[in-house]
Amino acid sequence: MYLTYPSKLLEEAVNEFSKLPGIGSKTALRLVLNLLRQDRESVEYFGKTILRLASEIRYCRICHNISDEEICPVCSDKRRDASIICVVENVKDVMIIENTRQYSGVYHVLGGIISPMEGVGPSDLNIASLEERAQDGIKEIILALSATMEGDTTNFYLFRKLNKFVPKISTLARGVSIGDELEYIDEATLVRSIQNRIPFNTV
Amino acid sequence: MYLTYPSKLLEEAVNEFSKLPGIGSKTALRLVLNLLRQDRESVEYFGKTILRLASEIRYCRICHNISDEEICPVCSDKRRDASIICVVENVKDVMIIENTRQYSGVYHVLGGIISPMEGVGPSDLNIASLEERAQDGIKEIILALSATMEGDTTNFYLFRKLNKFVPKISTLARGVSIGDELEYIDEATLVRSIQNRIPFNTV
Repeated sequence: MYLTYPSKLLEEAVNEFSKLPGIGSKTALRLVLNLLRQDRESVEYFGKTILRLASEIRYCRICHNISDEEICPVCSDKRRDASIICVVENVKDVMIIENTRQYSGVYHVLGGIISPMEGVGPSDLNIASLEERAQDGIKEIILALSATMEGDTTNFYLFRKLNKFVPKISTLARGVSIGDELEYIDEATLVRSIQNRIPFNTV
Repeated sequence: MYLTYPSKLLEEAVNEFSKLPGIGSKTALRLVLNLLRQDRESVEYFGKTILRLASEIRYCRICHNISDEEICPVCSDKRRDASIICVVENVKDVMIIENTRQYSGVYHVLGGIISPMEGVGPSDLNIASLEERAQDGIKEIILALSATMEGDTTNFYLFRKLNKFVPKISTLARGVSIGDELEYIDEATLVRSIQNRIPFNTV
Protein backbone atom coordinates (compact mmCIF):
# COMPACT_ATOMS: atom_id res chain seq x y z
CA MET A 1 0.00 0.00 0.00
CA TYR A 2 1.40 3.39 -0.99
CA LEU A 3 0.92 6.01 1.68
CA THR A 4 1.40 9.77 1.66
CA TYR A 5 3.60 10.76 4.59
CA PRO A 6 2.85 13.99 6.47
CA SER A 7 6.59 14.49 7.11
CA LYS A 8 9.78 13.85 5.10
CA LEU A 9 11.60 12.76 8.26
CA LEU A 10 8.89 10.23 9.06
CA GLU A 11 9.11 8.89 5.50
CA GLU A 12 12.90 8.63 5.67
CA ALA A 13 12.76 6.76 8.96
CA VAL A 14 10.18 4.33 7.53
CA ASN A 15 12.40 3.83 4.46
CA GLU A 16 15.41 3.04 6.63
CA PHE A 17 13.50 0.42 8.64
CA SER A 18 12.06 -1.06 5.41
CA LYS A 19 15.59 -1.92 4.28
CA LEU A 20 15.87 -4.49 7.06
CA PRO A 21 15.08 -8.08 6.02
CA GLY A 22 11.47 -9.15 6.49
CA ILE A 23 10.25 -5.64 7.32
CA GLY A 24 7.82 -4.09 4.84
CA SER A 25 6.70 -0.47 4.79
CA LYS A 26 3.61 -1.12 6.92
CA THR A 27 5.62 -2.82 9.67
CA ALA A 28 8.29 -0.12 9.38
CA LEU A 29 5.67 2.58 9.92
CA ARG A 30 4.37 0.74 12.96
CA LEU A 31 7.91 0.53 14.40
CA VAL A 32 8.62 4.23 13.78
CA LEU A 33 5.31 5.36 15.29
CA ASN A 34 6.09 3.15 18.28
CA LEU A 35 9.50 4.84 18.66
CA LEU A 36 7.78 8.23 18.58
CA ARG A 37 5.59 7.20 21.51
CA GLN A 38 8.67 6.33 23.59
CA ASP A 39 10.49 8.98 25.59
CA ARG A 40 13.22 10.90 23.83
CA GLU A 41 16.10 9.38 25.83
CA SER A 42 15.18 5.81 24.80
CA VAL A 43 15.02 6.74 21.13
CA GLU A 44 18.35 8.56 21.38
CA TYR A 45 19.93 5.54 23.05
CA PHE A 46 18.59 3.31 20.26
CA GLY A 47 20.06 5.60 17.59
CA LYS A 48 23.40 5.84 19.37
CA THR A 49 23.63 2.06 19.75
CA ILE A 50 23.24 1.72 15.98
CA LEU A 51 25.94 4.36 15.43
CA ARG A 52 28.20 2.38 17.76
CA LEU A 53 27.50 -0.75 15.71
CA ALA A 54 28.83 1.11 12.67
CA SER A 55 31.95 2.45 14.35
CA GLU A 56 32.92 0.16 17.23
CA ILE A 57 32.12 -3.40 16.23
CA ARG A 58 35.26 -5.51 15.85
CA TYR A 59 36.02 -9.01 14.69
CA CYS A 60 38.34 -11.48 16.41
CA ARG A 61 41.73 -11.44 14.69
CA ILE A 62 41.94 -15.24 14.93
CA CYS A 63 38.44 -16.65 14.28
CA HIS A 64 36.57 -13.62 12.77
CA ASN A 65 33.77 -13.85 15.32
CA ILE A 66 32.30 -10.53 16.51
CA SER A 67 34.25 -9.37 19.54
CA ASP A 68 34.71 -6.36 21.81
CA GLU A 69 38.44 -7.08 22.08
CA GLU A 70 41.08 -7.91 19.48
CA ILE A 71 40.73 -11.59 20.44
CA CYS A 72 37.25 -12.97 21.19
CA PRO A 73 36.33 -14.60 24.55
CA VAL A 74 36.46 -18.12 23.05
CA CYS A 75 39.91 -17.78 21.44
CA SER A 76 41.36 -16.17 24.56
CA ASP A 77 39.93 -18.80 26.92
CA LYS A 78 42.86 -21.02 27.98
CA ARG A 79 40.48 -23.88 28.93
CA ARG A 80 39.34 -24.27 25.30
CA ASP A 81 41.14 -26.80 23.12
CA ALA A 82 42.81 -24.65 20.46
CA SER A 83 43.80 -27.73 18.43
CA ILE A 84 40.19 -28.36 17.33
CA ILE A 85 38.57 -25.83 15.00
CA CYS A 86 34.86 -25.83 14.22
CA VAL A 87 34.21 -24.06 10.91
CA VAL A 88 30.85 -22.23 10.74
CA GLU A 89 29.13 -19.94 8.29
CA ASN A 90 28.38 -16.97 10.57
CA VAL A 91 28.36 -15.45 14.04
CA LYS A 92 24.90 -16.78 14.84
CA ASP A 93 26.09 -20.37 14.27
CA VAL A 94 28.82 -19.87 16.88
CA MET A 95 26.18 -18.72 19.35
CA ILE A 96 23.95 -21.72 18.56
CA ILE A 97 26.78 -24.23 19.05
CA GLU A 98 28.00 -22.46 22.22
CA ASN A 99 24.46 -22.73 23.52
CA THR A 100 24.65 -26.56 23.47
CA ARG A 101 27.62 -26.44 25.92
CA GLN A 102 28.92 -29.60 24.21
CA TYR A 103 31.89 -28.16 22.35
CA SER A 104 35.16 -27.13 23.96
CA GLY A 105 37.29 -26.37 20.89
CA VAL A 106 37.56 -23.06 19.04
CA TYR A 107 35.82 -21.65 15.96
CA HIS A 108 36.46 -20.20 12.55
CA VAL A 109 33.74 -17.98 11.06
CA LEU A 110 33.77 -18.15 7.25
CA GLY A 111 31.47 -15.16 6.84
CA GLY A 112 29.33 -16.99 4.28
CA ILE A 113 29.25 -20.04 2.10
CA ILE A 114 30.38 -20.72 -1.47
CA SER A 115 27.37 -19.95 -3.65
CA PRO A 116 27.82 -19.46 -7.41
CA MET A 117 24.11 -18.51 -7.57
CA GLU A 118 24.71 -15.51 -5.33
CA GLY A 119 28.16 -14.77 -6.70
CA VAL A 120 30.02 -15.79 -3.53
CA GLY A 121 33.34 -17.46 -4.32
CA PRO A 122 36.09 -18.83 -2.04
CA SER A 123 37.99 -15.52 -2.13
CA ASP A 124 34.99 -13.72 -0.56
CA LEU A 125 35.24 -15.91 2.55
CA ASN A 126 37.75 -16.15 5.43
CA ILE A 127 39.42 -19.22 3.90
CA ALA A 128 43.03 -17.99 3.53
CA SER A 129 43.24 -17.35 7.30
CA LEU A 130 41.75 -20.80 7.96
CA GLU A 131 44.45 -22.42 5.80
CA GLU A 132 47.07 -20.55 7.80
CA ARG A 133 45.58 -21.69 11.11
CA ALA A 134 45.36 -25.28 9.84
CA GLN A 135 49.17 -25.41 9.45
CA ASP A 136 49.70 -24.57 13.11
CA GLY A 137 49.39 -27.96 14.86
CA ILE A 138 45.64 -28.39 14.46
CA LYS A 139 44.43 -31.95 15.26
CA GLU A 140 40.88 -31.76 13.93
CA ILE A 141 38.71 -29.49 11.84
CA ILE A 142 34.95 -29.94 12.15
CA LEU A 143 32.99 -28.61 9.18
CA ALA A 144 29.68 -27.42 10.67
CA LEU A 145 28.05 -25.87 7.60
CA SER A 146 24.43 -26.14 6.45
CA ALA A 147 23.35 -29.51 5.01
CA THR A 148 22.54 -27.86 1.68
CA MET A 149 24.04 -28.00 -1.81
CA GLU A 150 26.11 -24.86 -1.05
CA GLY A 151 27.21 -26.31 2.28
CA ASP A 152 28.33 -29.55 0.63
CA THR A 153 30.20 -27.62 -2.07
CA THR A 154 31.99 -25.55 0.55
CA ASN A 155 32.75 -28.65 2.64
CA PHE A 156 34.31 -30.32 -0.39
CA TYR A 157 36.37 -27.24 -1.27
CA LEU A 158 37.63 -26.86 2.31
CA PHE A 159 38.41 -30.57 2.59
CA ARG A 160 40.68 -30.40 -0.47
CA LYS A 161 42.42 -27.25 0.84
CA LEU A 162 42.92 -28.45 4.42
CA ASN A 163 43.39 -32.19 4.01
CA LYS A 164 47.18 -32.01 3.63
CA PHE A 165 47.67 -30.05 6.88
CA VAL A 166 45.22 -31.63 9.32
CA PRO A 167 45.09 -35.32 10.38
CA LYS A 168 41.30 -35.37 10.88
CA ILE A 169 38.56 -33.48 9.08
CA SER A 170 35.01 -34.27 10.15
CA THR A 171 31.54 -32.96 9.44
CA LEU A 172 28.34 -32.91 11.48
CA ALA A 173 26.46 -36.24 11.41
CA ARG A 174 23.61 -36.37 8.90
CA GLY A 175 20.73 -38.45 10.15
CA VAL A 176 17.30 -38.69 11.65
CA SER A 177 16.37 -35.68 13.84
CA ILE A 178 15.43 -36.54 17.41
CA GLY A 179 11.64 -36.87 17.57
CA ASP A 180 11.19 -37.56 13.84
CA GLU A 181 8.85 -40.31 12.72
CA LEU A 182 10.27 -42.56 10.01
CA GLU A 183 7.46 -42.01 7.52
CA TYR A 184 8.08 -38.24 7.38
CA ILE A 185 11.84 -38.38 6.77
CA ASP A 186 13.06 -37.43 3.30
CA GLU A 187 14.74 -40.23 1.39
CA ALA A 188 18.19 -38.59 1.13
CA THR A 189 18.42 -38.25 4.91
CA LEU A 190 17.20 -41.82 5.42
CA VAL A 191 19.79 -43.21 2.99
CA ARG A 192 22.57 -41.31 4.77
CA SER A 193 21.38 -42.45 8.20
CA ILE A 194 21.46 -46.09 7.06
CA GLN A 195 24.91 -45.75 5.44
CA ASN A 196 26.28 -44.02 8.54
CA ARG A 197 24.52 -46.25 11.06
CA ILE A 198 26.18 -46.43 14.49
CA PRO A 199 26.63 -49.23 17.09
CA PHE A 200 23.59 -49.16 19.36
CA ASN A 201 25.47 -48.75 22.64
CA THR A 202 27.01 -45.41 21.64
CA VAL A 203 23.63 -43.74 21.12
CA MET B 1 16.16 -19.42 23.31
CA TYR B 2 18.83 -17.90 25.53
CA LEU B 3 22.05 -17.20 23.67
CA THR B 4 25.51 -16.21 24.86
CA TYR B 5 26.67 -13.15 22.94
CA PRO B 6 30.33 -12.88 21.92
CA SER B 7 30.19 -9.09 22.36
CA LYS B 8 28.46 -6.70 24.81
CA LEU B 9 27.79 -4.24 22.01
CA LEU B 10 26.10 -6.92 19.91
CA GLU B 11 23.97 -7.91 22.89
CA GLU B 12 22.99 -4.30 23.58
CA ALA B 13 22.01 -3.74 19.95
CA VAL B 14 19.90 -6.91 20.00
CA ASN B 15 18.24 -5.74 23.23
CA GLU B 16 17.40 -2.37 21.70
CA PHE B 17 15.76 -3.97 18.65
CA SER B 18 13.89 -6.44 20.89
CA LYS B 19 12.10 -3.52 22.54
CA LEU B 20 10.25 -2.81 19.30
CA PRO B 21 6.76 -4.32 19.08
CA GLY B 22 6.57 -7.77 17.46
CA ILE B 23 10.35 -8.23 17.41
CA GLY B 24 11.74 -11.04 19.57
CA SER B 25 15.39 -11.65 20.37
CA LYS B 26 15.90 -14.05 17.45
CA THR B 27 14.52 -11.58 14.89
CA ALA B 28 16.48 -8.78 16.57
CA LEU B 29 19.71 -10.76 16.20
CA ARG B 30 18.94 -11.36 12.53
CA LEU B 31 18.36 -7.62 11.99
CA VAL B 32 21.58 -6.63 13.77
CA LEU B 33 23.69 -9.20 11.89
CA ASN B 34 22.14 -7.91 8.67
CA LEU B 35 23.12 -4.34 9.61
CA LEU B 36 26.68 -5.53 10.22
CA ARG B 37 26.83 -6.92 6.70
CA GLN B 38 25.87 -3.53 5.25
CA ASP B 39 28.49 -0.88 4.57
CA ARG B 40 29.33 1.47 7.40
CA GLU B 41 27.78 4.56 5.80
CA SER B 42 24.34 2.92 5.53
CA VAL B 43 24.39 1.85 9.17
CA GLU B 44 25.50 5.33 10.23
CA TYR B 45 22.71 6.90 8.21
CA PHE B 46 20.20 4.55 9.85
CA GLY B 47 21.45 5.49 13.33
CA LYS B 48 21.42 9.20 12.53
CA THR B 49 17.87 9.02 11.16
CA ILE B 50 16.73 7.54 14.48
CA LEU B 51 18.56 10.31 16.37
CA ARG B 52 16.78 12.86 14.17
CA LEU B 53 13.45 11.18 15.02
CA ALA B 54 14.23 11.83 18.69
CA SER B 55 15.25 15.47 18.25
CA GLU B 56 13.57 16.88 15.14
CA ILE B 57 10.12 15.38 14.87
CA ARG B 58 7.36 17.96 15.32
CA TYR B 59 3.61 17.89 15.59
CA CYS B 60 1.21 20.25 13.80
CA ARG B 61 0.12 23.01 16.19
CA ILE B 62 -3.46 22.74 14.92
CA CYS B 63 -4.25 19.05 14.32
CA HIS B 64 -1.37 17.27 16.16
CA ASN B 65 -0.37 15.28 13.09
CA ILE B 66 3.37 14.67 12.60
CA SER B 67 4.79 17.52 10.56
CA ASP B 68 8.10 19.00 9.42
CA GLU B 69 6.71 22.53 9.83
CA GLU B 70 4.76 24.19 12.63
CA ILE B 71 1.58 23.63 10.58
CA CYS B 72 1.16 20.34 8.67
CA PRO B 73 0.63 20.15 4.88
CA VAL B 74 -3.09 19.38 5.29
CA CYS B 75 -3.87 22.24 7.67
CA SER B 76 -1.89 24.73 5.58
CA ASP B 77 -3.51 23.65 2.29
CA LYS B 78 -5.97 26.42 1.33
CA ARG B 79 -7.92 24.03 -0.92
CA ARG B 80 -8.97 21.89 2.07
CA ASP B 81 -12.27 22.66 3.78
CA ALA B 82 -11.22 23.78 7.26
CA SER B 83 -14.83 23.75 8.47
CA ILE B 84 -14.96 19.93 8.48
CA ILE B 85 -12.78 18.09 11.01
CA CYS B 86 -12.21 14.34 10.88
CA VAL B 87 -11.22 13.05 14.33
CA VAL B 88 -8.82 10.07 14.27
CA GLU B 89 -6.89 8.08 16.82
CA ASN B 90 -3.38 8.41 15.39
CA VAL B 91 -1.08 9.56 12.59
CA LYS B 92 -1.44 6.30 10.66
CA ASP B 93 -5.21 6.77 10.44
CA VAL B 94 -4.67 10.17 8.78
CA MET B 95 -2.42 8.49 6.20
CA ILE B 96 -4.98 5.74 5.57
CA ILE B 97 -7.83 8.22 5.03
CA GLU B 98 -5.64 10.52 2.88
CA ASN B 99 -4.83 7.47 0.79
CA THR B 100 -8.50 7.10 -0.23
CA ARG B 101 -8.42 10.62 -1.78
CA GLN B 102 -12.10 10.94 -0.82
CA TYR B 103 -11.81 13.46 1.99
CA SER B 104 -11.15 17.16 1.53
CA GLY B 105 -11.61 18.44 5.08
CA VAL B 106 -8.97 18.64 7.83
CA TYR B 107 -8.04 16.33 10.71
CA HIS B 108 -7.63 16.18 14.45
CA VAL B 109 -5.31 13.50 15.85
CA LEU B 110 -6.43 12.46 19.35
CA GLY B 111 -3.22 10.55 20.06
CA GLY B 112 -5.11 7.55 21.41
CA ILE B 113 -8.53 6.48 22.55
CA ILE B 114 -10.28 6.48 25.92
CA SER B 115 -9.45 3.12 27.50
CA PRO B 116 -10.02 2.58 31.22
CA MET B 117 -8.37 -0.86 30.82
CA GLU B 118 -5.09 0.74 29.73
CA GLY B 119 -5.45 3.74 32.00
CA VAL B 120 -6.04 6.24 29.18
CA GLY B 121 -8.50 8.94 30.20
CA PRO B 122 -9.82 11.99 28.30
CA SER B 123 -7.09 14.24 29.77
CA ASP B 124 -4.37 12.08 28.16
CA LEU B 125 -5.74 12.86 24.70
CA ASN B 126 -5.80 16.00 22.52
CA ILE B 127 -9.43 16.73 23.42
CA ALA B 128 -9.11 20.24 24.93
CA SER B 129 -7.63 21.57 21.68
CA LEU B 130 -10.44 19.87 19.72
CA GLU B 131 -13.05 21.60 21.89
CA GLU B 132 -11.35 24.91 21.16
CA ARG B 133 -11.29 24.25 17.42
CA ALA B 134 -14.97 23.20 17.50
CA GLN B 135 -15.96 26.67 18.69
CA ASP B 136 -14.41 28.34 15.67
CA GLY B 137 -17.10 28.03 12.97
CA ILE B 138 -16.83 24.30 12.37
CA LYS B 139 -19.74 22.89 10.32
CA GLU B 140 -19.15 19.17 10.79
CA ILE B 141 -17.06 16.84 12.91
CA ILE B 142 -16.61 13.28 11.63
CA LEU B 143 -15.69 10.78 14.34
CA ALA B 144 -13.51 8.20 12.55
CA LEU B 145 -12.44 6.02 15.47
CA SER B 146 -12.22 2.23 15.64
CA ALA B 147 -15.52 0.34 15.77
CA THR B 148 -14.63 -1.12 19.16
CA MET B 149 -15.92 -0.67 22.70
CA GLU B 150 -13.20 1.92 23.37
CA GLY B 151 -13.98 3.70 20.09
CA ASP B 152 -17.68 3.85 20.94
CA THR B 153 -16.93 5.16 24.44
CA THR B 154 -14.68 7.88 23.02
CA ASN B 155 -17.29 8.74 20.35
CA PHE B 156 -19.94 9.15 23.02
CA TYR B 157 -17.66 11.29 25.21
CA LEU B 158 -16.68 13.53 22.28
CA PHE B 159 -20.29 13.84 21.13
CA ARG B 160 -21.36 15.18 24.54
CA LYS B 161 -18.44 17.63 24.62
CA LEU B 162 -18.80 18.94 21.07
CA ASN B 163 -22.52 18.74 20.45
CA LYS B 164 -23.23 22.25 21.73
CA PHE B 165 -20.68 23.87 19.40
CA VAL B 166 -21.06 22.02 16.10
CA PRO B 167 -24.28 21.70 14.02
CA LYS B 168 -23.38 18.23 12.67
CA ILE B 169 -21.46 15.37 14.28
CA SER B 170 -21.22 12.19 12.24
CA THR B 171 -19.43 8.86 12.50
CA LEU B 172 -18.20 6.39 9.90
CA ALA B 173 -20.96 4.11 8.56
CA ARG B 174 -21.08 0.68 10.22
CA GLY B 175 -22.10 -2.03 7.78
CA VAL B 176 -21.21 -4.91 5.57
CA SER B 177 -17.63 -4.75 4.22
CA ILE B 178 -17.35 -4.76 0.43
CA GLY B 179 -16.80 -8.37 -0.67
CA ASP B 180 -18.25 -9.95 2.49
CA GLU B 181 -20.65 -12.87 2.20
CA LEU B 182 -23.75 -12.62 4.36
CA GLU B 183 -23.21 -15.90 6.20
CA TYR B 184 -19.83 -14.77 7.59
CA ILE B 185 -20.94 -11.39 8.95
CA ASP B 186 -21.19 -11.06 12.72
CA GLU B 187 -24.68 -10.39 14.05
CA ALA B 188 -23.93 -6.97 15.55
CA THR B 189 -22.73 -5.65 12.20
CA LEU B 190 -25.70 -7.19 10.40
CA VAL B 191 -28.19 -5.61 12.84
CA ARG B 192 -26.54 -2.18 12.36
CA SER B 193 -26.50 -2.55 8.59
CA ILE B 194 -30.25 -3.31 8.58
CA GLN B 195 -31.08 -0.44 10.94
CA ASN B 196 -28.99 1.98 8.91
CA ARG B 197 -30.06 0.67 5.51
CA ILE B 198 -29.73 3.17 2.68
CA PRO B 199 -31.81 3.91 -0.46
CA PHE B 200 -30.51 1.67 -3.23
CA ASN B 201 -29.71 4.43 -5.75
CA THR B 202 -27.13 6.12 -3.47
CA VAL B 203 -24.94 3.00 -3.26
